[in-house]
Amino acid sequence: MIVMKSTATEEQIRHVIERVESVGARAHLSQGEEVTLIGAIGDREHVARLGLEGAPGVENVVPILKPYKLASTQLRHGEHTVLEIAGSKIGGSNFALIAGPCTVETHAQTLATAVAVRDAGATMLRGGAYKPRTSPYAFQGLGLEGLRMLADAKAQSGLPIVTELMDTRDLDAILEVADVIQIGARNMQNYPLLAEVGRAGRPVLLKRGLSSTLEELLMAAEYVLKEGNEAVILCERGIRTFETAYRFTLDLTAIPVLKELTHLPVVVDPSHAAGRRSLVTPLSLAAAAAGADGIIVEVHPNPEEAICDGPQALYLEDFPGYVEQVKRAAAVAGKVLAAV
Amino acid sequence: MIVMKSTATEEQIRHVIERVESVGARAHLSQGEEVTLIGAIGDREHVARLGLEGAPGVENVVPILKPYKLASTQLRHGEHTVLEIAGSKIGGSNFALIAGPCTVETHAQTLATAVAVRDAGATMLRGGAYKPRTSPYAFQGLGLEGLRMLADAKAQSGLPIVTELMDTRDLDAILEVADVIQIGARNMQNYPLLAEVGRAGRPVLLKRGLSSTLEELLMAAEYVLKEGNEAVILCERGIRTFETAYRFTLDLTAIPVLKELTHLPVVVDPSHAAGRRSLVTPLSLAAAAAGADGIIVEVHPNPEEAICDGPQALYLEDFPGYVEQVKRAAAVAGKVLAAV
Amino acid sequence: MIVMKSTATEEQIRHVIERVESVGARAHLSQGEEVTLIGAIGDREHVARLGLEGAPGVENVVPILKPYKLASTQLRHGEHTVLEIAGSKIGGSNFALIAGPCTVETHAQTLATAVAVRDAGATMLRGGAYKPRTSPYAFQGLGLEGLRMLADAKAQSGLPIVTELMDTRDLDAILEVADVIQIGARNMQNYPLLAEVGRAGRPVLLKRGLSSTLEELLMAAEYVLKEGNEAVILCERGIRTFETAYRFTLDLTAIPVLKELTHLPVVVDPSHAAGRRSLVTPLSLAAAAAGADGIIVEVHPNPEEAICDGPQALYLEDFPGYVEQVKRAAAVAGKVLAAV
Amino acid sequence: MIVMKSTATEEQIRHVIERVESVGARAHLSQGEEVTLIGAIGDREHVARLGLEGAPGVENVVPILKPYKLASTQLRHGEHTVLEIAGSKIGGSNFALIAGPCTVETHAQTLATAVAVRDAGATMLRGGAYKPRTSPYAFQGLGLEGLRMLADAKAQSGLPIVTELMDTRDLDAILEVADVIQIGARNMQNYPLLAEVGRAGRPVLLKRGLSSTLEELLMAAEYVLKEGNEAVILCERGIRTFETAYRFTLDLTAIPVLKELTHLPVVVDPSHAAGRRSLVTPLSLAAAAAGADGIIVEVHPNPEEAICDGPQALYLEDFPGYVEQVKRAAAVAGKVLAAV
Repeated sequence: MIVMKSTATEEQIRHVIERVESVGARAHLSQGEEVTLIGAIGDREHVARLGLEGAPGVENVVPILKPYKLASTQLRHGEHTVLEIAGSKIGGSNFALIAGPCTVETHAQTLATAVAVRDAGATMLRGGAYKPRTSPYAFQGLGLEGLRMLADAKAQSGLPIVTELMDTRDLDAILEVADVIQIGARNMQNYPLLAEVGRAGRPVLLKRGLSSTLEELLMAAEYVLKEGNEAVILCERGIRTFETAYRFTLDLTAIPVLKELTHLPVVVDPSHAAGRRSLVTPLSLAAAAAGADGIIVEVHPNPEEAICDGPQALYLEDFPGYVEQVKRAAAVAGKVLAAV
Repeated sequence: MIVMKSTATEEQIRHVIERVESVGARAHLSQGEEVTLIGAIGDREHVARLGLEGAPGVENVVPILKPYKLASTQLRHGEHTVLEIAGSKIGGSNFALIAGPCTVETHAQTLATAVAVRDAGATMLRGGAYKPRTSPYAFQGLGLEGLRMLADAKAQSGLPIVTELMDTRDLDAILEVADVIQIGARNMQNYPLLAEVGRAGRPVLLKRGLSSTLEELLMAAEYVLKEGNEAVILCERGIRTFETAYRFTLDLTAIPVLKELTHLPVVVDPSHAAGRRSLVTPLSLAAAAAGADGIIVEVHPNPEEAICDGPQALYLEDFPGYVEQVKRAAAVAGKVLAAV
Repeated sequence: MIVMKSTATEEQIRHVIERVESVGARAHLSQGEEVTLIGAIGDREHVARLGLEGAPGVENVVPILKPYKLASTQLRHGEHTVLEIAGSKIGGSNFALIAGPCTVETHAQTLATAVAVRDAGATMLRGGAYKPRTSPYAFQGLGLEGLRMLADAKAQSGLPIVTELMDTRDLDAILEVADVIQIGARNMQNYPLLAEVGRAGRPVLLKRGLSSTLEELLMAAEYVLKEGNEAVILCERGIRTFETAYRFTLDLTAIPVLKELTHLPVVVDPSHAAGRRSLVTPLSLAAAAAGADGIIVEVHPNPEEAICDGPQALYLEDFPGYVEQVKRAAAVAGKVLAAV
Repeated sequence: MIVMKSTATEEQIRHVIERVESVGARAHLSQGEEVTLIGAIGDREHVARLGLEGAPGVENVVPILKPYKLASTQLRHGEHTVLEIAGSKIGGSNFALIAGPCTVETHAQTLATAVAVRDAGATMLRGGAYKPRTSPYAFQGLGLEGLRMLADAKAQSGLPIVTELMDTRDLDAILEVADVIQIGARNMQNYPLLAEVGRAGRPVLLKRGLSSTLEELLMAAEYVLKEGNEAVILCERGIRTFETAYRFTLDLTAIPVLKELTHLPVVVDPSHAAGRRSLVTPLSLAAAAAGADGIIVEVHPNPEEAICDGPQALYLEDFPGYVEQVKRAAAVAGKVLAAV
């Protein structure tokens, strides 16, 4: 939809119409007393490429159609996708609980956590071997050694593994272990990485960038979907705002809005948003009650000794009580914690 | 806490110490290899007035003490305030449900809504007679006539009334009707207005400004509390962020954080944040599950005919079902919808 | 412009058209393959009141016309307003330099500053007698006594006075002294206050709220203009963002954008945005080079002793050099520091 | 600096001190009446790893030391770095003007632009062969073919080339042509990519992420510097805020603040921030007057035909006039457009 200035001349209007038609779109003129509108009906990308925002007589250009196609609810006629990951379901009425340490540290820590969270009701195990860190001087993850620990934890607990990929060069190693490949918030618009995991065909948990709009999140998902990989889980993990009283602002409005826009499952990470343990339970309950399809949460047998993000990890001993509360909140939204 | 530059001279350090001591505070020097710190122990306002941020050799000034006193949890040794408003409790385990139209339009609409929301379980009636509108050309509220309609609705339903005050000159008229005086988000830092409602002694529902920090919200409450009025209810109603897929970002992290910082009750307004009906229920459930002390929500017998904000009003006929869901979500957080 | 869902029925489309026509607007239907649009041509407020965002079949509503009329450049056919305030011009090619202390403290400070800034080239004197302070425990201004000091400074220096009004009840006292009434950022949407200064007919300097959009700023100006007061100066003073390395983010893009949207003069306050002296000069030069019509800046004979905001005040002794630099930057944008 | 709660016990204080000392840092206790502080003097990363934010009795943790070292002004004792890139200087009093098309499209367009911007006074040529696009359906750049066009443009014009790298797998090809490797805003925290360009040793132009703090920008630079590559140019290109009247908010306050924090040169990209041509000149003048070390700007011989971002490109024919204005603005800040 092109909005012409009130001072636009007939000539300028005609010129815009010609340019719209030059890319195979249909122009639809609508002249009011105060404003003239030109609807451009056709391929959004082609019209966007015209760059009409700068053309003489043009006030502004208002896109009407959504730019994503494969992620759209319209594709599935309003039905929501249910994924089955190594026997564990997510989506529809199936609530997933993905728990584990921020980072894989030792064999003992990883195995103990895996078994304990499974026993308490978690449906997948999370844990990072490659860690994106703001500081180059901070611990960057155990890498291959960490992946081996995750493989053992998977063998012993039977839980599917969610772990982060940061570099296309590590893809093969990750594919050996991961049931779900996590793309972190900082890499949400790392397009070569998105295309690679799209081609790899493994389920992807895609975290929203810390100041990405929901439309940008869906466009990032589109990069994966476009390669033929239909298994994308979206993850809200807190956005950046002016507030400094806590780390990130968890955007729970994103849950019902994404449910309207896309058929893909939506989970919430309350741990990174909160940055401290005392906020994790209330935020988890809120996310479940708002209709999330799952939660990805950090748990540690001994948070005081954790190498990274200990302050936000739940104590392993508190985890069973936490699961009971989350179940009740999910039930309010009509969801059931999926059994493995 | 004053952080000195690594290049600060002895002279500059001595000068800062002298200035700290000149306002009656104690200076506490702590010299490390890379940085020198000077703790200023005493009245925060006195030290702030020194304006040491600009002084020679000073890197920056980090405030350590909270600037609010009366709103602080420390004042009540961690106990949370329970208010009783015309027989209706809010705070502690008492969940309040404040419902009604955005704006008072007609006698019939107001009375019908009042009785229906009371029957469904609402504990207070909301409704605006004075409306802050972005456009001077928009409907500005019925004023005194609207207040009379609210008085009748109160008589007939028995519900306490929550209504907004925008102008100190309307205070007396508002006091005739209001059990709770609402201060809107745009007036959160209207200090003369805050001082007046503080002096009036009537309970106040104080909405967070759309880009106010939680500390600023508590400082605004402090303006009311300082006048001797202890009955302040804080209200989260959505903050402004970069996201454009919905109207405001409801900041539910504010609930548990405010619970740590202040003894005052905290309610949530999901209607204005969402801007559209379909988001109101999930956000209400999330707010209740996160531990809010109540919800203030818009309901209308015929939203299509509403003069303002119809798209975000719940249908009166859907309200009883809504109340049942909210009760279940509040129960997850250990709260009970308070009976009138 | 109403965008219908792709699933909207004929019935729903007809219903929207009927409602648009029910308020006297004309409906203009445009049916594409993927989307149906209904243009509503008529009074924006009337259409807005319909609240069509929530109606069945409606995807969303995109406003096309600007909601402000009197502030719009269209009103003046692209010409910019030049105001003359007690002999001092602002707007067009006239650059105004409004300088003085944050707050009026003593007779001596005020007079010394007034004379010195005039001698250096300032065109108006700023100074607050009523101060909006985040903390109720902070200094709130000298009030009437401060206004008397400003009156003396005006008599002695010949400079027009810019001072802030916070409360409608202080209007008469302010009118005794002020040549320009400042409305602070926190009061930008204090509508009763805006209407009063509109009726008072005195020039108004309206500061942008710290998270107000430019459209909201222009709507606030519209509240003043609507009362018949055409002398409104807009002021950019920094917006709130996620960045914590300085106080506010000065939005200099606002200058050329406002120049496109409105005929009103635009000035910039670099002092409050920066929060510290070292940033004030570069930001002032940037504002002038970007095409601002003026700057309002804080200057103090002895910032270390200033009661408020000393760290951001320029030293009086540095002010003449500052003025020379600002003149050169304004010249780049084709403006000349207006002589008094 | 660890701030203890007012309710912290002696035991809790002792425990924190022990943990601080356990990582080789020195603990410095400072007990006031209202608050107890524990300074942790030692390696910031070691103390951060303790995760004391969650420990019993701890109110919060306030970092005092900057987390970056190599990027800090302290490293150079306040001196600013001057880089020489293929004979073209940037930094100190040398102002760089990097101009060219958003994306390389054809041989003719690239050569014509290169020669024309050189003749007008540009000091480097910009142009993208690999383009990060929000939509997977949008043009993604010419890749290797584009790099060949840039090589020809360099041979013909003598201008150094600035071009973007998105994928570590393209590094070798980029190194064949690029004098400066651009890292885009979306990849600012793509740590494997940063480390690779660090190791490659070629100058890097690092764009600030659209919601990255200045501290995060400097930490990203630190990833490059840590590999031994000292040639990093920082680039402000607009941040994301709530404002929707233009594309991004150009953060010009970042210029003087970065000048205080780091010795690295700072340039500004007004084109992407603005999103439309009419804002590019005022923003460029503002950036130069604020003290930027250079500007990177988009120019196109025929913006209406540009494949991407045409609306923000300057017309080639207007470029010489633009350069003259920018020179004058840079002169206000004491900088001279560097000759090639």
